[in-house]
Amino acid sequence: MRFEVLILGNSSATPIFERHPTAQIINFNEQYFLIDCGEGTQMQMHRYGVKSNKISHIFISHLHGDHYLGLIGLLSSMNLHGRTADLHLYGPSVLIDIINLQLKYSDARLQYNLIFQPTNPDQEEVLYRSEKLTVRSFPLKHRVPTTGFRFDEGPRSASLIREKIEKLNIPKVFFGMLKRGIDCVDVDGTVYKAAELTKPAPASRSYAYCSDTRAFEKYVDSIRGVDLLYHESTFLHELVDRAEETCHSTCKEAGMVARQVEAKKLLLGHYSARYKDLTPLLEEAQLEFVNTELSFEGKWYKV
Amino acid sequence: MRFEVLILGNSSATPIFERHPTAQIINFNEQYFLIDCGEGTQMQMHRYGVKSNKISHIFISHLHGDHYLGLIGLLSSMNLHGRTADLHLYGPSVLIDIINLQLKYSDARLQYNLIFQPTNPDQEEVLYRSEKLTVRSFPLKHRVPTTGFRFDEGPRSASLIREKIEKLNIPKVFFGMLKRGIDCVDVDGTVYKAAELTKPAPASRSYAYCSDTRAFEKYVDSIRGVDLLYHESTFLHELVDRAEETCHSTCKEAGMVARQVEAKKLLLGHYSARYKDLTPLLEEAQLEFVNTELSFEGKWYKV
Repeated sequence: MRFEVLILGNSSATPIFERHPTAQIINFNEQYFLIDCGEGTQMQMHRYGVKSNKISHIFISHLHGDHYLGLIGLLSSMNLHGRTADLHLYGPSVLIDIINLQLKYSDARLQYNLIFQPTNPDQEEVLYRSEKLTVRSFPLKHRVPTTGFRFDEGPRSASLIREKIEKLNIPKVFFGMLKRGIDCVDVDGTVYKAAELTKPAPASRSYAYCSDTRAFEKYVDSIRGVDLLYHESTFLHELVDRAEETCHSTCKEAGMVARQVEAKKLLLGHYSARYKDLTPLLEEAQLEFVNTELSFEGKWYKV
Repeated sequence: MRFEVLILGNSSATPIFERHPTAQIINFNEQYFLIDCGEGTQMQMHRYGVKSNKISHIFISHLHGDHYLGLIGLLSSMNLHGRTADLHLYGPSVLIDIINLQLKYSDARLQYNLIFQPTNPDQEEVLYRSEKLTVRSFPLKHRVPTTGFRFDEGPRSASLIREKIEKLNIPKVFFGMLKRGIDCVDVDGTVYKAAELTKPAPASRSYAYCSDTRAFEKYVDSIRGVDLLYHESTFLHELVDRAEETCHSTCKEAGMVARQVEAKKLLLGHYSARYKDLTPLLEEAQLEFVNTELSFEGKWYKV
């Protein structure tokens, strides 16, 4: 089952060097979730072949322009493209006021349901829960109310041991129960033992998104043990004062956070416009946390 | 003296086929004016080498997203890039409310003066007047309050006839007056006759921008005799019913308007997403008005 992240924008503040403001797509089993939606996100989606009708949920971290100014354009284009499916939107409470004001003056009426749920910048909350996936928001520390998002996969099924199943000619009707660990009895009394016929379920996967934020705040409890951690790394540590001042993080700090929370892998992003070559950013983070990668636009990263 | 238009976006409604929502730059003697500012305008400016600090005035025709959603991002980036020069903004009166709401929630304060002047959707008005240039807005007919813009160059100077000037060794101090048609008398009593020493001033140039609008409304009086007319041509005439319904124009109608107002040249744009190949649009307009061109993004058009 797919669980991947596509980076659509990894620039901080202003677009530069062909880098765009923040946006990313989570593909969870072909259901698409959009996190943040900087200006030009719909063009980036075109460029990388993402169909907007696959997006069911949009999560906005905060109301700095580089994280949400592409939203109203995307919502309008979805409308023009004939969307009828519900769209769930999560973000700071006043986001819906801005959207409604813009819709009002453009005399536009969305032909689909836009279901808005405000995020809570003060404590962790579950935003979405299904059997297969749970999405939570959690407070970050920035200059305006901001949340991160964490995606946790539900329990995964065990997989059948094909050779044994075929050898015993077990009817398909029992596959689902066996995968869930339930022993089955056939009409002739034969017992099929789940433990013998299946490989143990693989571990559930998790992804966390932390942008924008000052490092080392209480959010570390919310991201503990994630498989893939996207953490903003706006500056090199030589500019830690600037990071403090603007409530951002340095690459060194992002690496330290990843180590502290025992993430499996760290993905850097939200690069300052002052860095054309990103290698020093990667190297600095890797000194703290080896399994670090730079995020690049247009690239899918497995969770 | 330069008077040119750079097309940054020529798509209607949604970005497609690498075409972007509406925006264009007027370069008048190295002073830049931006007309409309669809999503992604600042990226298009990067792409085509337009420095935002050269822009002194921005004109927004109406509040459909494809004509203004890039504005707040551009204003923010100007701020981040350290702009201190005044910026003049003209558009529908509520535009400033939307901008102020977005600035408020992003906790941003512009470090330059943003001087807003609402446009009047009911009658023609002068927005800007200098010795060299006058800019007017005039009502268009669209689904929401909309104006077009007309740029009229002021009287141009006559040019000196170099050979005569050099032969008579006329002091430079007289050049300005001669160009303005004033005869001069030298200290030794020699009379320099402007009419003999200058070529007549070339005609003043004018540009008009009409997007979005239903064709054939009273705005034709406002654009009479322009040298270059940019007129939206969203549809082929086979879709004139759709043009009526959505308050847009067809290519045939754009051609007829250009002929009716005796424009020198017509530039088409605001193409519907249904047209990948634009040749039929050009051909249809040219049947009505021969001197028609398609507008292409990244291309400068002389006025």
